[in-house]
Amino acid sequence: MSQLPKEDKMSSLLKLAQKFNCFYLSDLNGSACKPFVVKGLQVGLIRADVMKQLTNFPEVFHIHSGCVELNPAFRDYEERSTKVDEVLRKLRIKNAFITLKGWRDECYEVKTEFSASSLLKMDRSATCLFGIRNYGVTINGFVKESQQVKYLWFQKRSPTKQTWPGKWDNMVSGGLSVNHGILETACKEAMEEASIPSNLLKNLVSAGCVSFFFESERGLFPNTEFVFDLELPFDFVPENADGEVETFEILPVEKCVEKILAPDFKTTSAPVVLDFLIRHGIVTPENESEYLKIIELLHIPLQTVYKQYAYQIKENGFAALNSV
Amino acid sequence: MSQLPKEDKMSSLLKLAQKFNCFYLSDLNGSACKPFVVKGLQVGLIRADVMKQLTNFPEVFHIHSGCVELNPAFRDYEERSTKVDEVLRKLRIKNAFITLKGWRDECYEVKTEFSASSLLKMDRSATCLFGIRNYGVTINGFVKESQQVKYLWFQKRSPTKQTWPGKWDNMVSGGLSVNHGILETACKEAMEEASIPSNLLKNLVSAGCVSFFFESERGLFPNTEFVFDLELPFDFVPENADGEVETFEILPVEKCVEKILAPDFKTTSAPVVLDFLIRHGIVTPENESEYLKIIELLHIPLQTVYKQYAYQIKENGFAALNSV
Repeated sequence: MSQLPKEDKMSSLLKLAQKFNCFYLSDLNGSACKPFVVKGLQVGLIRADVMKQLTNFPEVFHIHSGCVELNPAFRDYEERSTKVDEVLRKLRIKNAFITLKGWRDECYEVKTEFSASSLLKMDRSATCLFGIRNYGVTINGFVKESQQVKYLWFQKRSPTKQTWPGKWDNMVSGGLSVNHGILETACKEAMEEASIPSNLLKNLVSAGCVSFFFESERGLFPNTEFVFDLELPFDFVPENADGEVETFEILPVEKCVEKILAPDFKTTSAPVVLDFLIRHGIVTPENESEYLKIIELLHIPLQTVYKQYAYQIKENGFAALNSV
Repeated sequence: MSQLPKEDKMSSLLKLAQKFNCFYLSDLNGSACKPFVVKGLQVGLIRADVMKQLTNFPEVFHIHSGCVELNPAFRDYEERSTKVDEVLRKLRIKNAFITLKGWRDECYEVKTEFSASSLLKMDRSATCLFGIRNYGVTINGFVKESQQVKYLWFQKRSPTKQTWPGKWDNMVSGGLSVNHGILETACKEAMEEASIPSNLLKNLVSAGCVSFFFESERGLFPNTEFVFDLELPFDFVPENADGEVETFEILPVEKCVEKILAPDFKTTSAPVVLDFLIRHGIVTPENESEYLKIIELLHIPLQTVYKQYAYQIKENGFAALNSV
């Protein structure tokens, strides 16, 4: 009786949107993950494989039946950050998780939502182990012809990158690290990754965001990307300055769907390209049968995925009280 | 312990986004509504006040404990459409619902999702009684200056319109009626509502969609709007041709937030304006603290709100089997 489309009838772009939302669509409900709670607030989700390792650090992580709690005796941001960092460095030496091989010495803030105050900081290679929400910026570098968007720039990641080595990616992107603003990060990355001069960067236009929830063998990725569009002159060629890019390529917009569907494109960078192609009238309701579903999957409600719970220790354990 | 922002600390635009999603955010879970099922598939939601009236038509609507079902003995699209139409005309004469005073003699298709085949058609004034998903098109008419988006056109609805009379609205919009395509509807409405000539309409750019779930005294509105942007020359002035518009006004983009927050702006037209202001860098993460939440609320996952259920009549009643 189901009217769900058969696998082979589903559009390729819808399949891609389902792929970068694989955790949202399949594992989120009734998953074996437990909420990760800091100071009474849920900031993440923890898989069973990670939980198993954390049981070795009972002085830092309290594993209850309903959640994993960071020791509430830790007094402040500094103490929480230090204690978690100590555990992560031990797990790294132990080779417990592949993601920690890519230790970055660069921290992400851990908070319930973007505008909330940070509860601790954590090396960016480790946040996926705790399902911490992750924020980044991406710049779509495009070229117009006869007033129409005609070409889009891509970068090929260096083969020595710690994540997604050698894959095709957006022209410029970067994670929002501790103490860096959104526009500031966009400009910094534009200069480092693509040597875009400030006279061109002044044309940067904020254009929204995409939200999705991906899972890989490394961990959980509830990602939100702030999106910027940047019109570039036809004769400008990006040039890498930080060694993290192998090459750049410019493609006619009609070739971009094929580009992001290819196996050598970084799955978690496809949402921003897809959003760009939709906003600029390249993917339309006339040429994409699953247009509406795809757009909804570019903006999943992460604000309701991590609801804010207040936890109270009761005599007989831990009771979750939904405070929303 | 909750970190939820206090009412007075929340941004005005987030409050607006919550207002046009009032049903999604508050009544959806554990509401008194029952799924409306046609041919074993959920196509809507029915409030208690509507259900009460439908009990008078047991030959058309079967009211079970878990859902309201259109009589499964009706053979096809035509028979289902005719039988429902007969009931609606009786309810209209009886003055049972204010929304039926605005009878349109124009039908919407009833289907599980946009790309599915239609199960019946229903006068557009009645679809909100059954919580039927509603699809429309909107055109943002804008003017550039020095290559930047600087002005946006609005229309003031005629005081004799059946819904939202005299309210400010998008420049051009219209519902997707039976037998009309998306682009076709956009062009038709552009000509009827604003006399936009075809040489300007060729610049129409598809720019995405917005999805939200509003409720009013009239009924339930799970709405999806296909969005188009149209750059207009500075000297073009829209002129109404069908008597449904009182006047048009052009505003600098910086004044548009104030415009949509005002009480004389049609609540369900605000999402498209907000999406436009976000896509064109007028509302940004730097000037709007609740940027991310607002964007998610412009694209709520209606595809999962109306999951597709298969219903089977069992000896002891009706059992809902989730087929997803």
